[in-house]
Amino acid sequence: VPLRDRDGAHPVVSLLTDFGGAEPFVGLVKAQVLRACPGAILVDLTHDLPPFSIEAAAFWIGRSYHWFPAGTVHVCVVDPGVGTARRILLVEHAGHMLLAPDNGLLAGIALQAGAVVRAVDASMQYEPGGRPVSATFHGRDLFAPLAGRLAAGDLLPADCGPVVDDWVRKERALPSVTPDAVTGTVLFQDRYGNVFSNIEPSIHVAWKEWSVHAGGRRLPWVRTYGDAAPGTLVALENAFGVIELACVEGSAAGELGLGPGAAVEVRRLR
Amino acid sequence: VPLRDRDGAHPVVSLLTDFGGAEPFVGLVKAQVLRACPGAILVDLTHDLPPFSIEAAAFWIGRSYHWFPAGTVHVCVVDPGVGTARRILLVEHAGHMLLAPDNGLLAGIALQAGAVVRAVDASMQYEPGGRPVSATFHGRDLFAPLAGRLAAGDLLPADCGPVVDDWVRKERALPSVTPDAVTGTVLFQDRYGNVFSNIEPSIHVAWKEWSVHAGGRRLPWVRTYGDAAPGTLVALENAFGVIELACVEGSAAGELGLGPGAAVEVRRLR
Amino acid sequence: VPLRDRDGAHPVVSLLTDFGGAEPFVGLVKAQVLRACPGAILVDLTHDLPPFSIEAAAFWIGRSYHWFPAGTVHVCVVDPGVGTARRILLVEHAGHMLLAPDNGLLAGIALQAGAVVRAVDASMQYEPGGRPVSATFHGRDLFAPLAGRLAAGDLLPADCGPVVDDWVRKERALPSVTPDAVTGTVLFQDRYGNVFSNIEPSIHVAWKEWSVHAGGRRLPWVRTYGDAAPGTLVALENAFGVIELACVEGSAAGELGLGPGAAVEVRRLR
Repeated sequence: VPLRDRDGAHPVVSLLTDFGGAEPFVGLVKAQVLRACPGAILVDLTHDLPPFSIEAAAFWIGRSYHWFPAGTVHVCVVDPGVGTARRILLVEHAGHMLLAPDNGLLAGIALQAGAVVRAVDASMQYEPGGRPVSATFHGRDLFAPLAGRLAAGDLLPADCGPVVDDWVRKERALPSVTPDAVTGTVLFQDRYGNVFSNIEPSIHVAWKEWSVHAGGRRLPWVRTYGDAAPGTLVALENAFGVIELACVEGSAAGELGLGPGAAVEVRRLR
Repeated sequence: VPLRDRDGAHPVVSLLTDFGGAEPFVGLVKAQVLRACPGAILVDLTHDLPPFSIEAAAFWIGRSYHWFPAGTVHVCVVDPGVGTARRILLVEHAGHMLLAPDNGLLAGIALQAGAVVRAVDASMQYEPGGRPVSATFHGRDLFAPLAGRLAAGDLLPADCGPVVDDWVRKERALPSVTPDAVTGTVLFQDRYGNVFSNIEPSIHVAWKEWSVHAGGRRLPWVRTYGDAAPGTLVALENAFGVIELACVEGSAAGELGLGPGAAVEVRRLR
Repeated sequence: VPLRDRDGAHPVVSLLTDFGGAEPFVGLVKAQVLRACPGAILVDLTHDLPPFSIEAAAFWIGRSYHWFPAGTVHVCVVDPGVGTARRILLVEHAGHMLLAPDNGLLAGIALQAGAVVRAVDASMQYEPGGRPVSATFHGRDLFAPLAGRLAAGDLLPADCGPVVDDWVRKERALPSVTPDAVTGTVLFQDRYGNVFSNIEPSIHVAWKEWSVHAGGRRLPWVRTYGDAAPGTLVALENAFGVIELACVEGSAAGELGLGPGAAVEVRRLR
């Protein structure tokens, strides 16, 4: 997919951080994007990631960026190393540009076929208005001006720094697989109390029938929530490509009491 | 009111859901709107409705949509029936277009004079990029592309499906009215602890003087919060057309301890 | 700095309130801005200020507005006096326009060199669509239409009302300073549990070495969080120009147990 025309009238910049909403941190990032790219369309993915959770950031950006128009610049800042020697990466994939600290956040996308990973030159890391760069808020002082200039087309990815291959990898716990069972773990719960596992249904796609087990319960497999009565615990493939435990119009996390790391098992029936 | 020119440079799409902000659900809806309608201006009404609360969604969209520019497309998704056979409705009223599941969410607006209600054809319910539609996230996969195409003018309401009259009605508890008293109930509290009742002041507009009673207390009637001293419990007509119980610079909900369904009474004095 | 061309294609309006996100209050402000200024780019600073906290609003707008493009209109609404005789102020500074109730919220900016403060004429305080103005939601009914018309260039600051000098001042607790120590107080904690003090490092800029003390602990001075090991309590100059107490990848507020008003001391070593 070619990058969209950089002179496009409606450049999109998405934002994914652990900044929260109680302070104007996100608004200041947007202010700086707009100074570099007047007219940018700013879309919040989320800012309520658990503080310092690179894993959650990596999960969500990997399941989100491809839904945006090609040409979108994605700014991902979960950055416990802010102000240290850690690098800033620019990853290009499928017409998208993604910026994040080199801490594993973009490792999943960097491994995709066709992805190009650059380490942003230190000389690029200045705020074009000439203001001093703080040591603790690179979202506002480095990421936002870079993103704005990329979105505006004032800067091309190749201008930002050299292609590198020594970016930080991130281990990810994968399910264990046998011919008759897949055993994974709980990743997190969402706001509905739906429990996301790390099991992708493709693992057992060849099976004809299976059952899902978690917290000592067997959960019926359904296509969607409304296929069972309110209050029923069910399992399904969710809209983000993983097996999810849900309670119809209720909270599976509350019913099952399962936190991150708890076991989820899919057993082959035939 | 005629619909705004569909070639308008600044189409507005408002969003009202129970998706919360901890996950990027809302951002993905916006991504899909922007793919269908580059340049759309996206406005969040709220995403923190109580999960599955069709009543809260119906209250707020009914009190909100007419404040937007004519031509706005409003996407309202509180959708416990997602992925089942429930229909998607498109309601046109006063130059606005509103999309929601057929679960009563838009019933109040559909009953307005001049409202036109359509059931979206199943054939319209595809994601134009050709991606498979999930069974559990129609906000991203069906509502957003539809809204974007309506906002862009690529689709006209009449293209979306037939006018229907068998949409889901929603019972709403109305206050009981006698010549000398109106007795209603608490709907909810807002973030300030202001308590919204279901009593519209028009009910007792012919009275010259009245008193408001709730939680065993009589609350003085004021025009606005600052008309009484901090800490005072007061009653007033709020900016959404209902009688509200408030505590000046404090929380009436905390002071009164009244939850949804508790009685609120207006008594005629003369 | 001259104001940006009022015919600019991309007028920016920033919003800072204590409205929260559970109800569509903010969305309705935006709807009204867009009716007055189609195409406005709306940026949330924060809406989760503590209810009625003029101090928090004043701190954050004072540290935020200058990061936006010149010409931005900033709408600041923490307004316990809504609907009373309190005035609305329009402050111009460095090419920015700021609107807020006359309750001290903009006092810090109004004191800046070159700031011009106007009291908005009562005759300006109407909603151009001709709807009645509520007594309790001036964010939607007065501030938003005014901001939209200013952003659109339909209204110039000089049209809004006379320059005044009798606006509400706000006392602010300043640190006490001796030749060898600066003693300030905790302002608040942010979402990471970082503790903001009211001490600006410029106070002790002439010192060669110093130590920071709070909660009976001595905190090492660092440039950024990553300069110490996870779990370490540190002090630094943060990105908003005040001394901050932090716990690397943890919560200083949790570790120290210090609330607003607690003492923070900087001692000269040499």
